[in-house]
Amino acid sequence: MEEDKSSNTIETQKGAQELPFDWPKQAWTHFELVRQKSPLIQCITNFVSMDFMANTLLSAGASPAMIHSVEEIPEFTPKALGVCINAGTLTPDWLPGMKLAAQVANQSKKPWVLDPVAAGGSSFRLKACLELLALKPSVVRGNGSEILALFKGCVDSNSKGVDSVHGSSDAVEAAKSLAQQSGCVVAVSGAVDYITDGDRVVCVHNGVPMLQKITASGCSVTALIAAFVAVDPSHAVEATASALAIFGVASETGMDMARGPASLRTLLIDSLYGLDEATALSRVRINHL
Amino acid sequence: MEEDKSSNTIETQKGAQELPFDWPKQAWTHFELVRQKSPLIQCITNFVSMDFMANTLLSAGASPAMIHSVEEIPEFTPKALGVCINAGTLTPDWLPGMKLAAQVANQSKKPWVLDPVAAGGSSFRLKACLELLALKPSVVRGNGSEILALFKGCVDSNSKGVDSVHGSSDAVEAAKSLAQQSGCVVAVSGAVDYITDGDRVVCVHNGVPMLQKITASGCSVTALIAAFVAVDPSHAVEATASALAIFGVASETGMDMARGPASLRTLLIDSLYGLDEATALSRVRINHL
Amino acid sequence: MEEDKSSNTIETQKGAQELPFDWPKQAWTHFELVRQKSPLIQCITNFVSMDFMANTLLSAGASPAMIHSVEEIPEFTPKALGVCINAGTLTPDWLPGMKLAAQVANQSKKPWVLDPVAAGGSSFRLKACLELLALKPSVVRGNGSEILALFKGCVDSNSKGVDSVHGSSDAVEAAKSLAQQSGCVVAVSGAVDYITDGDRVVCVHNGVPMLQKITASGCSVTALIAAFVAVDPSHAVEATASALAIFGVASETGMDMARGPASLRTLLIDSLYGLDEATALSRVRINHL
Repeated sequence: MEEDKSSNTIETQKGAQELPFDWPKQAWTHFELVRQKSPLIQCITNFVSMDFMANTLLSAGASPAMIHSVEEIPEFTPKALGVCINAGTLTPDWLPGMKLAAQVANQSKKPWVLDPVAAGGSSFRLKACLELLALKPSVVRGNGSEILALFKGCVDSNSKGVDSVHGSSDAVEAAKSLAQQSGCVVAVSGAVDYITDGDRVVCVHNGVPMLQKITASGCSVTALIAAFVAVDPSHAVEATASALAIFGVASETGMDMARGPASLRTLLIDSLYGLDEATALSRVRINHL
Repeated sequence: MEEDKSSNTIETQKGAQELPFDWPKQAWTHFELVRQKSPLIQCITNFVSMDFMANTLLSAGASPAMIHSVEEIPEFTPKALGVCINAGTLTPDWLPGMKLAAQVANQSKKPWVLDPVAAGGSSFRLKACLELLALKPSVVRGNGSEILALFKGCVDSNSKGVDSVHGSSDAVEAAKSLAQQSGCVVAVSGAVDYITDGDRVVCVHNGVPMLQKITASGCSVTALIAAFVAVDPSHAVEATASALAIFGVASETGMDMARGPASLRTLLIDSLYGLDEATALSRVRINHL
Repeated sequence: MEEDKSSNTIETQKGAQELPFDWPKQAWTHFELVRQKSPLIQCITNFVSMDFMANTLLSAGASPAMIHSVEEIPEFTPKALGVCINAGTLTPDWLPGMKLAAQVANQSKKPWVLDPVAAGGSSFRLKACLELLALKPSVVRGNGSEILALFKGCVDSNSKGVDSVHGSSDAVEAAKSLAQQSGCVVAVSGAVDYITDGDRVVCVHNGVPMLQKITASGCSVTALIAAFVAVDPSHAVEATASALAIFGVASETGMDMARGPASLRTLLIDSLYGLDEATALSRVRINHL
């Protein structure tokens, strides 16, 4: 696979590390593609995040559709350019739609992204997330605790539900192994975000700590990842890192005027909408581990 | 029907076009009625829009109730002064409640308003919206693509889900025909909003383009239409145009300070809450086609 | 019971009324405990309030988990330090999860709090709320109409759904009787909030009228009560009054810069996040009736 990728212009070339890959340019290019293509992103997500997630996608230039009924997935999902599936407020009746959308996306050769919210919170939730993972999303994004739970395949007795009790750096090795086993790109978000295909590990240093005080900020960045991967599905690592960086930059510029988590959420969306190239190029901080 | 209406003071008189109907005054009068009567508006809507819709109604002076259970509709719906039914995140289990609420509203002689979100997105969705339309809402409001889908009765292969791929002006003739066939007032929102009873077409020129970047702004204005029609059910065209204009004015005044879609949403609600007569009278722009 | 409580340092001592209990200090101490312990609060709530409620808990330092599936309650609920159950957008399929979570919380000796939204709106809703009340929450919080409906056990023909048609002071005696009958602490919120265990009545004078124009502000303060009671379950009256006062103070400081209900909501969350001791101590207004 490495060989195939090496011919691609947006990959770093082996033996050319003295000329580092231009990640800020890469992130901006992906963001511009989203704005130009305005990809239709179908989201099957939790009740908490629907509003924030849809507004994140809209402000980034994508076109969200919160559609989860099994009755319309066979007909609607092929029209979408990407799908985001999120386990937040999971109940058994939502699972068939999630699985069907994943399968239809696969059949349609469209990327889909999994957010295994609180995967280690209960056996039911873990089992559901592992079943979804087995349907081979392009990308799975979670916090440290969620990725560790998926990797270990066991419930976390210290689970704080949605909130991570592990730093993202604690889960890097688990993420690599999980990526190798599953064949998915795995992203662990936290103080530093790590994105890995099981071989390479890319680190994103953007973002602000206060994002943890905004509910569904993780869900929203997963939706943004779906949009970025949708416009460049053959480079899921790069698209994922770009989405995390652009979202992080928007939070950083929003933070300049924020008085707390609620104004930060507003400013984050506004910043994402108005983000310009100069800001993105000067702020994006991505490197290889 | 024309004859009956001609005696009504808030109708334009035929042959009196040199004395134009005072739309700004009309819109303000409707808004004041909402603030005075504080109508209870039952909303059966999608998961994305519930918060924004309820806050829109509250800021306008109405009293929202997000109640959708078939168990309580026979008892609760008659207490409401108007009902708003929205097909956003539709699944089969929500349809019986929607239909029952429409029927109870009809029996109680209360107006109800239909928002056929993404009607052309799938066969399931289109069928559901057409079944609801057959229950004769007072008003149906959609974007160009949604109204065209209802009119044509066929799924839109280019559907972008919630977002319109047609301008509102593309759907004016369809709206007129649909109004004639269905007996409902049809409103097509977009750069210009068109409201028609199949005979007259009223145009609202208020609003800002950035509304398209706020999820559920269409859902919210439909809820506002329900409140306006609830306080003046015998003049559904005027009440609908008034609601669209007042919402549009609130977005315009909010836009003065907005930095992006999220701050615009906040400012729109604040503006709706604080809107005064002078601003409304100077800003409302409605005319006949 | 009085005798047992009299030894407790945070209770007012009979015959010591010349040295009034230091409520501001009490409220601040409870708030600091929430920030220190970051209690995991499971919320089974309505679709409208999930986002606002989760953000309220996060900004206060608690850790919200919106988890309602019966499949995971037996395993997840024991990990939570408190549970908040809210009847907002109730349907029959949500009731088993609510009841199970209440029972598991009881078995785990964790406090749970009930928000009987629109209890008087229909027979179905009233019956459900009474069944939940029979499972003995630590605290039930409602507006005047909701508490009166629970006390009288009958549907309110004048119900405006979620909005109260009764002042909180109209419901004080009902609240006392309901507390005596049910063994729960009962809180009636309104212009003045009343908290009673059936014996004492504590009054909270914080808050601003515009809170009534923000959907789910009542739901959110109930979630905050759950967090406060979770960190001091043996003093449910004091913890409830503290939560109502701190939320009220946050709304007051937020009101200084608010332009309307939407900016107030943003500022309220920001203020809750940033609230400092000096502001809390100078602003908290609680007394005994």
